[in-house]
Amino acid sequence: MKNKEIRVRCWVYIDGSKFFGPGRAELLSLIKESGSISKAAKAMGMSYKKAWAMIDEMNSLGQKPYVITQKGGHQGGGTALTETGKKAVAAYERLLHKIQTTINRESTILEFF
Amino acid sequence: MKNKEIRVRCWVYIDGSKFFGPGRAELLSLIKESGSISKAAKAMGMSYKKAWAMIDEMNSLGQKPYVITQKGGHQGGGTALTETGKKAVAAYERLLHKIQTTINRESTILEFF
Repeated sequence: MKNKEIRVRCWVYIDGSKFFGPGRAELLSLIKESGSISKAAKAMGMSYKKAWAMIDEMNSLGQKPYVITQKGGHQGGGTALTETGKKAVAAYERLLHKIQTTINRESTILEFF
Repeated sequence: MKNKEIRVRCWVYIDGSKFFGPGRAELLSLIKESGSISKAAKAMGMSYKKAWAMIDEMNSLGQKPYVITQKGGHQGGGTALTETGKKAVAAYERLLHKIQTTINRESTILEFF
């Protein structure tokens, strides 16, 4: 018996371009947990430079910044999600959950594969 | 006012590997319409060889063949979807439609982006 499953990937597009999807959602979640861009980047196997570029693009293109970095202390201060960032991650996760519920309800289509 | 939208891509995985998704669904739909692998491949900007490899893999890994090619005539015969192929395409489109309905219902999340 083969193991069959349905998987989706979901993105928010702004003006026809990918703006927010699985990668950015994971990055923001990891920043929220760790308070650090470099730890989040490392956990995703990504360079700090790339992670920072992703955040910079989100902060510039979104309505409001998603991530704030506070300088200070010899550790270089901390990084946190803004309210907008927290709400965006929560909204994206809620959407994925709803889509997963739909998929579970439609899983009988797997018999045709 | 920026144009924001949610888009998804959806795949059926068999034993942990992508088996059927947007590309194969489009290929099968085009074969169904045109009765020809080469026309379908051309419409997708894909080589005949690649299209044939996709079909061959589907026919081998799926429970039953999805596409049948009938030899004969100097045009090289015709190509059509099997009942399994037709049902798979229809089931996949139904799933996408249901997911789209869920997305439309949840579109208020776009305010957070």
